[in-house]
Amino acid sequence: MPKISERGIEMPSSPIRKLVPLANAAKQRGTKVYHLNIGQPDLLTPPNAIEAMKNVDRKILEYSPSEGILSLRQKLVTYYAKFNIDVDVDDIIITTGGSEAVLFSFMACLDPGDEIIVPEPAYANYMAFAISAGAVIKTIPSTIDEGFALPSVEKFEELITPRTKGILICNPNNPTGYLYTRKEMNQIRDMVKKYDLFLFSDEVYREFCYTGAPYISACHLEDIEDHVILIDSVSKRYSECGIRVGALITKNKQVRANVMKFCQARLSPPLIGQIIAEASIDTPEEYLLDMYDEYVERRKYLIDGLNRIPGCYTPIPMGAFYTVAKLPVDDSDKFCEWLLRDFSYEGQTVMLAPASGFYTTPGLGKNEVRIAYVLNKEDLHKAISVLAIALEQYPGRSI
Amino acid sequence: MPKISERGIEMPSSPIRKLVPLANAAKQRGTKVYHLNIGQPDLLTPPNAIEAMKNVDRKILEYSPSEGILSLRQKLVTYYAKFNIDVDVDDIIITTGGSEAVLFSFMACLDPGDEIIVPEPAYANYMAFAISAGAVIKTIPSTIDEGFALPSVEKFEELITPRTKGILICNPNNPTGYLYTRKEMNQIRDMVKKYDLFLFSDEVYREFCYTGAPYISACHLEDIEDHVILIDSVSKRYSECGIRVGALITKNKQVRANVMKFCQARLSPPLIGQIIAEASIDTPEEYLLDMYDEYVERRKYLIDGLNRIPGCYTPIPMGAFYTVAKLPVDDSDKFCEWLLRDFSYEGQTVMLAPASGFYTTPGLGKNEVRIAYVLNKEDLHKAISVLAIALEQYPGRSI
Repeated sequence: MPKISERGIEMPSSPIRKLVPLANAAKQRGTKVYHLNIGQPDLLTPPNAIEAMKNVDRKILEYSPSEGILSLRQKLVTYYAKFNIDVDVDDIIITTGGSEAVLFSFMACLDPGDEIIVPEPAYANYMAFAISAGAVIKTIPSTIDEGFALPSVEKFEELITPRTKGILICNPNNPTGYLYTRKEMNQIRDMVKKYDLFLFSDEVYREFCYTGAPYISACHLEDIEDHVILIDSVSKRYSECGIRVGALITKNKQVRANVMKFCQARLSPPLIGQIIAEASIDTPEEYLLDMYDEYVERRKYLIDGLNRIPGCYTPIPMGAFYTVAKLPVDDSDKFCEWLLRDFSYEGQTVMLAPASGFYTTPGLGKNEVRIAYVLNKEDLHKAISVLAIALEQYPGRSI
Repeated sequence: MPKISERGIEMPSSPIRKLVPLANAAKQRGTKVYHLNIGQPDLLTPPNAIEAMKNVDRKILEYSPSEGILSLRQKLVTYYAKFNIDVDVDDIIITTGGSEAVLFSFMACLDPGDEIIVPEPAYANYMAFAISAGAVIKTIPSTIDEGFALPSVEKFEELITPRTKGILICNPNNPTGYLYTRKEMNQIRDMVKKYDLFLFSDEVYREFCYTGAPYISACHLEDIEDHVILIDSVSKRYSECGIRVGALITKNKQVRANVMKFCQARLSPPLIGQIIAEASIDTPEEYLLDMYDEYVERRKYLIDGLNRIPGCYTPIPMGAFYTVAKLPVDDSDKFCEWLLRDFSYEGQTVMLAPASGFYTTPGLGKNEVRIAYVLNKEDLHKAISVLAIALEQYPGRSI
């Protein structure tokens, strides 16, 4: 039998994968599992978007252009303008989810062996796409004690080598919910300029900023226009993760030309998804505000609840719909397994994402978990109560 | 400005790309352009498939499983059984188009520097996906004079090195329409066994076999179960290229486990496309037979027409909806440009795909073009007449 690729073997496997069969087994035993582990919003996709799908008046579902449907790209120009992101239709390439935008930006900018620097904890699939492209991710830890603020410029500079080609940030951040300040964004800009780097900026959670602090896009930074590659997706903001529509946005023409070759190879992004995405942009403001208010309440509820559990601590996330919390446990991987395999309270348990999956530095995140607030308040209330009881009973409790 | 990737620069650019602006300019001049260059069927998507999209009864368009929706995979098992392809649900991984199935099979099986052997002319994007994976495609020319039959085993063996990891075939073939015989498929099987190779078999045109000769799937070959990776797509057979649903099928568990890591990284294939694809499999036999009969007639019409043009020759394609024809021209790239830029007859011209885009061996295909029969018979008739007149007038005529 021929050998499979080393590259594939190196691909990270999320610790959640190991938990899924345990969660299924728990459900089969009749246990109610509260999912605090996922990034799929539970809120409804805007009805006007679903309606647009039902009204599709086409007899042939043919290829769309490799760069995406023009009318969607035009509508996105208007959408970005609301955030003072000044882009032209030509700057926008539609991708199959934000995932493909990450992959293609790596493919177009990085050669095998090239390095990018990423603050961690970070979305685990960045690593997967880097491995796909043969690129190397070097991580700099941010810490829960500093609220996951940007690590110091010195820490970045320690990692810069002749192979360093870029910095990748996620802002607002998955998994921490951190929102970079103007000062931090300026520090990033200065490094990008000084070392002539690409700045890959994943901003798919821009709608979810809660504190009144300004959202500073990489596109707002002066003098590095040709360095910035914005990664975007409609998945989270319209609760339509399944349609697989994202975007890669850059003013750098050479990058765009390179990206387009990868786009042409895969022919086109999903047609129906693009139609849905285009309609989503016209969702009444009111609908989106309701969604926003819901997250504001959940966040307050979750953070208060978590910080009230003895030994538990989470900084206050400024954005997205996640937080990373420190728990009084020996090992969060073990704790998350225990929750599903050995624990239940009144027929209920919770599923959490061990933070180890978001760090590459060994040992980091060992007592941290990522918690998503994509449950309604009632369930969130129950989930937090169940978690509190579980932490009391867990044999590996550390405090 | 940071440098873009060499990998991106190496990506092939189809000669068609250069022609598109010329075609647009011709249309702006009021010239009717018959598109014989494209692989997008003009036949209608099955109405029941479009209906299924309109009947989607979901309030949240959420992620589907990374391996695809179970009910679609189950239905595909039944579909493949009709072709004596005996696969289990677990053997089927749904991909974002056949394109992603090619990319992920390369990513999962090949490491940078690994080689695969591909008979040419071949679908140009195989090269693009190989470059994405850092793999090397070595091509063996098949010739129009031999009707694009499989090159001899000796020719394959000449290319085998310690880095050779696989053979890739497309059967029925794009661009030639060739259908491999049982004898040829057995030769491939023997090589695969002898040299312990993967066999990547792209069989997206299996529904389009016209001569009564049997379609031999790579999955029909004995003793190489763990070597075969079948690449499939619903795009062509249901005229729904835009929904981006394909499949990667293999009995090799290690390969599947590796492929799944790439699938998990990109989260999920398009949800709505999968719903449409699933319904498409239930399309009434009658509808598909009408589609088939239409291609049978077009094919006869096109082949007869082409071979009647003085100096023109095409073998009779046994499958797909393409043929490669030899034209009495100095250079088919130039001829195709001339058709769009300098020629029109009664306000009409044709757009063809220069065969150079399907060869990697320099100089091959210089007087060949790929012609797709995805036009209705009336337009096909006009297109062939216009082509005949163009060949009379073309200043670079070679005979």
